[in-house]
Amino acid sequence: MAKWIAGVDIGGTTLSVGMVPVAGGRPRALRVEDTPGRRGGEEVVDRVCGMIRAAVDELARAEGAGAVVAGVGVAAPGSLDRARGVVLESHNLGWFGLPLRDRVQAATGLPTVVENDANCAAWGEWWQGAGRGFRSVLGITLGTGIGGGIVMNGRPFHGATGAAGEIGHMTVEYGGRRCTCGGRGCLEAYASGPGIARAAAEGLGGGARSSLAELVDGDLGRITAATVHEAAVGGDAYAAGVLARAARMLAAAIASAVNLLGPDAVVVMGGVAAAGDLFFDPLAAELGRPRFRSAVDACTVVPGALPGTAGVVGAAGVFRLRADET
Amino acid sequence: MAKWIAGVDIGGTTLSVGMVPVAGGRPRALRVEDTPGRRGGEEVVDRVCGMIRAAVDELARAEGAGAVVAGVGVAAPGSLDRARGVVLESHNLGWFGLPLRDRVQAATGLPTVVENDANCAAWGEWWQGAGRGFRSVLGITLGTGIGGGIVMNGRPFHGATGAAGEIGHMTVEYGGRRCTCGGRGCLEAYASGPGIARAAAEGLGGGARSSLAELVDGDLGRITAATVHEAAVGGDAYAAGVLARAARMLAAAIASAVNLLGPDAVVVMGGVAAAGDLFFDPLAAELGRPRFRSAVDACTVVPGALPGTAGVVGAAGVFRLRADET
Repeated sequence: MAKWIAGVDIGGTTLSVGMVPVAGGRPRALRVEDTPGRRGGEEVVDRVCGMIRAAVDELARAEGAGAVVAGVGVAAPGSLDRARGVVLESHNLGWFGLPLRDRVQAATGLPTVVENDANCAAWGEWWQGAGRGFRSVLGITLGTGIGGGIVMNGRPFHGATGAAGEIGHMTVEYGGRRCTCGGRGCLEAYASGPGIARAAAEGLGGGARSSLAELVDGDLGRITAATVHEAAVGGDAYAAGVLARAARMLAAAIASAVNLLGPDAVVVMGGVAAAGDLFFDPLAAELGRPRFRSAVDACTVVPGALPGTAGVVGAAGVFRLRADET
Repeated sequence: MAKWIAGVDIGGTTLSVGMVPVAGGRPRALRVEDTPGRRGGEEVVDRVCGMIRAAVDELARAEGAGAVVAGVGVAAPGSLDRARGVVLESHNLGWFGLPLRDRVQAATGLPTVVENDANCAAWGEWWQGAGRGFRSVLGITLGTGIGGGIVMNGRPFHGATGAAGEIGHMTVEYGGRRCTCGGRGCLEAYASGPGIARAAAEGLGGGARSSLAELVDGDLGRITAATVHEAAVGGDAYAAGVLARAARMLAAAIASAVNLLGPDAVVVMGGVAAAGDLFFDPLAAELGRPRFRSAVDACTVVPGALPGTAGVVGAAGVFRLRADET
């Protein structure tokens, strides 16, 4: 009789649900949907609960009635009260004080735990992905923002204040680019999707020559990290340079984080990381430049191995961990 | 019958030894000497062992024969094999593979433990100083270099690789000032004593007007962080600006470190920190500027409360901790 956990990843643009074997393994009955527009909490919670029920039903059809579902792990954005499973503040979803755990438990009849999305992604990669076998993993998710999650000695790490892991707001260039947080020079202003798009558009506005302008029919506001990547893959030197600069800034932040925290692995996940060698070659070159080396040399930096599902797998893994402890 | 521990702090310029009560308290029979010149390990080890014996004798004279010494805690620079008490590499002292623990044990007849100097300073402030009552402390020692030590949930933290805490080599300005490590833009290049002195000299060489030039009789090579501080205290706006810039760069690194690590306190120690308001006012102002706030707001940043003795107290505290565990 196999046991399963529903893993849920609630993102600003997509919702993902999959059934993960308690013993580990790839998610089954995976479903991915667009996140409904910003109409407060109700619609998103209802949609997520419907996806969980559908995934549980699909699993039961495939595996028979013997497929036991132990519970639900939810990866949620924003600041959390983990003990009570409440999303205190998520501007992306318009959730303020939403009792997510209780809502999911009531709608599904399954015990539920809620954990930070970046920590779930790191946990997923450590449990089942590129971070397997390491003692301590810093997971970095590049997307609309930059999330950081930490696994330390086989435990999710939250810091004394519960606010650890925010690598996106480490300063890499004092007084540099304006960040959405109001600060300047944060990693997120350089290496997030919007940061890359903005850097590309600014350079073109300043007269740089690139096929990017044609890709967006001259409308620089339509440039995204994906179009920059597309142009770079097509041989555009300007676009490749924009990606490389983002990778170098990420490398500087990784070196800083590794010097402070001393993990034995860093796993880079998310959309921008999918740019492959165009991103990881300049990243590795920057890490290899002259710098204080002991912590950097003792640490392995790798791309994630679970594209699209690290959060789902990790959320299920966090449910399993907490169930083991209680 | 009081029990005591000899705390030893081996620095590149000074050696400090004091007798610390096992229950905590100010060091007694404190002695501070210049570190002998760079003639390899022998002379420094002999000097330290002589200082320990003298401190133990002084304590016995004051307290009577009932004063029991439990052992010796040593704060050592460079990279260590903590389990064996060996200094693997300290360029300052010319020690490479020096079995410091065994040498001190043999010379004093007392059980001895060896710990990283920056961790001892942080431990001392957490145990008996400005970090008391906090769950997790990042200790930063500003001096010839910049050392970082971490106390996490009542334990010294070394990271998975043993190389954590190197806040001095976090990048605060990508592509910025050259650091002694070979990298660019490290905090240490801005906020260490030599970093401050170099910035001051460069500005004067570039034509800035300041009383600093007179303080060193026109020989810019004689500028130190202490002369910059002296000029700033005397009302020199240029010198105050140099100190303020160092403090702002430290604030940027503190914000980065706090966002990643989530401690509830940061304790700033060492020579530069002694500049008082001239340093801590711009530090606080920079931390208060618009930036990602949750971790920063949840953390208290304070000057150290044990100037000159944090390492001695912390080394004794680490001995006590390890003795409790074995």
